[in-house]
Amino acid sequence: MNVKGNPTRTIWPGPDGTSVEIIDQTVLPHRYEIAVLRTLDDAAHAIRAMLVRGAPLIGATAAWGVWLAMQNDASDAALTRAYDTLFATRPTAVNLRWALDRARTRLSPLPESERATAARALAIEVCDEDVGINHAIGQAGLALIRDIAAQKPAGQPVNILTHCNAGWLATVDWGTATSPIYQAHDAGIAVHVWVDETRPRNQGFNLTAWELLNHGVPHTVIVDNAGGHLMQHGQVDLCIVGTDRTTATGDVCNKIGTYLKALAAHDNGVPFYVALPSPTIDWTVRDGVAEIPIEERSGDEVTHIAGLGPDGTVTTIQIPPTGSPAANPAFDVTPARLVTGLITERGVCPASAAGLKNLFPDQSI
Amino acid sequence: MNVKGNPTRTIWPGPDGTSVEIIDQTVLPHRYEIAVLRTLDDAAHAIRAMLVRGAPLIGATAAWGVWLAMQNDASDAALTRAYDTLFATRPTAVNLRWALDRARTRLSPLPESERATAARALAIEVCDEDVGINHAIGQAGLALIRDIAAQKPAGQPVNILTHCNAGWLATVDWGTATSPIYQAHDAGIAVHVWVDETRPRNQGFNLTAWELLNHGVPHTVIVDNAGGHLMQHGQVDLCIVGTDRTTATGDVCNKIGTYLKALAAHDNGVPFYVALPSPTIDWTVRDGVAEIPIEERSGDEVTHIAGLGPDGTVTTIQIPPTGSPAANPAFDVTPARLVTGLITERGVCPASAAGLKNLFPDQSI
Repeated sequence: MNVKGNPTRTIWPGPDGTSVEIIDQTVLPHRYEIAVLRTLDDAAHAIRAMLVRGAPLIGATAAWGVWLAMQNDASDAALTRAYDTLFATRPTAVNLRWALDRARTRLSPLPESERATAARALAIEVCDEDVGINHAIGQAGLALIRDIAAQKPAGQPVNILTHCNAGWLATVDWGTATSPIYQAHDAGIAVHVWVDETRPRNQGFNLTAWELLNHGVPHTVIVDNAGGHLMQHGQVDLCIVGTDRTTATGDVCNKIGTYLKALAAHDNGVPFYVALPSPTIDWTVRDGVAEIPIEERSGDEVTHIAGLGPDGTVTTIQIPPTGSPAANPAFDVTPARLVTGLITERGVCPASAAGLKNLFPDQSI
Repeated sequence: MNVKGNPTRTIWPGPDGTSVEIIDQTVLPHRYEIAVLRTLDDAAHAIRAMLVRGAPLIGATAAWGVWLAMQNDASDAALTRAYDTLFATRPTAVNLRWALDRARTRLSPLPESERATAARALAIEVCDEDVGINHAIGQAGLALIRDIAAQKPAGQPVNILTHCNAGWLATVDWGTATSPIYQAHDAGIAVHVWVDETRPRNQGFNLTAWELLNHGVPHTVIVDNAGGHLMQHGQVDLCIVGTDRTTATGDVCNKIGTYLKALAAHDNGVPFYVALPSPTIDWTVRDGVAEIPIEERSGDEVTHIAGLGPDGTVTTIQIPPTGSPAANPAFDVTPARLVTGLITERGVCPASAAGLKNLFPDQSI
């Protein structure tokens, strides 16, 4: 999407033909900086230190990291080292393993002299596939927004609430939940986005607001507490959020607080959609609330917040009194009964076992 | 309640016999400072600059402010000036007007020589009445907590979630939503409180956590997004919140985000109680969502947060990118259908017109 008017991805090959460039997401939204990755270790650091984040973008960075490694040494040992080094950065990231397995399978049979070129082609392929999936999600969601727009009085925007960042910064481009929004905006449909802060890590304010601001999409930032009130008063036409994991029955595990917004949407008759690439569907899980373990993260994320300080540098402050313990469940599960539909690269389906099976008949559930 | 082991109110007559002392709430939770009020202007400043806040405490401070004025000049002109000066500090505060009207009615008929003494007696009366009401609310709520405790396995605390600060810092002592909690704790019932941050102004972290920490009540701070997940997993036994305004039908207008917690409580079968002194019931309003206007406050409260900076001073930081607009509705309305009961100084009643009428037959609704 656009940054300062220029179409931009989150990762791309550098102009020198040997490096990779990324947006350093650790300094957003207050600074926009490009980081150059020249070595395997640069790529590993970018993932580990979260200069890049979001499952699809982590996978893409790993694919590019293999290329950086192969340019220097394309031996079997180097390939193994690249795999192990990148895998160790965030071992629970599914897309990371998937990208690395794919690279190893593709490169291993090749002579060393062809590996760098093949790795580069694979990285481009991984990125373009992600863009293609997200674009298809956006097309499916665009139809929903277009239908709502057609029912609104002329000149009134479609008001969309989103939580966390399922935006292009988490992917190579378009994002998932944001893809329908960008495509509607680009198609000339008036949209306005309510951006949830998304405490504790503030991805809504730090990332989603920055994305929308740079692409020129009208939006308003709100605290996580505000969405229910807005829905009570007809100020939200639909919700679109992302998901980290979707069950075979349509339950959705997403950033903490998603469930509260789904409850409010349900209570007020506001459509609540979840956008997802189909690889995030876990066909082995049927009951999300009972079966999905929720990551408990450090309480420091709750008690401390970083932002732009009075001196213009990023500053971290402590909110509650020293001595109060904090709990930090990072995700929650929204039961399928609260989800209007799932927006996938194959189209929109009901959040149910039957709905998913109909769209993905090739999957056993 | 206790501060550093000492029973403390939010306002009290100074040891010199002529001043009034308060807790300066603007520097909580990171510093505990007593401010001394010696003049009418000191009292007016304390209200205006929010060294004191919360309707009952504002009323009490106004009553003490009249005493400070009368010590210096007890003429009719001085009484009028005291009334006008204090009323202008926060003209929409109902308790402020109520306390001032009461002082004027009490003092006007008296000779000047008796006014200071009478003003002092009235201030003590206003404070003790507030303490009495809040204690009665606590007794009513204590019974609910005791019943839940009796059903829990031995050694497991009753887990109570609260939002914002309806604590003793908003009153003279006990608080409203916190009064049952303090009384249960003091009675030896094991309780544990989930403290919602309460963005945008963070009263949960800044005030409620500080209160509980100082009184020794076990508690855990959480972001506003977390409560729904905790309720899904049986980690909340009941919710108790306060209210700024309650309709004749039991709808509750309270700090933004209360509605979302009530939805989650309802969805998970968790009792959701609202504690209130009966003067906050507005017998003229029947439909809270439709009729109660919601204050829209400055977006700066959403975009900027104050906390303890790295240098040990209170520092304000900006979260979203410069240029993103913010909306800041300060309250929301929780429909009576989501409220299990209202805890008042006369006991607990259903959140309904019939329930309120039964408890307050003297009110026409």
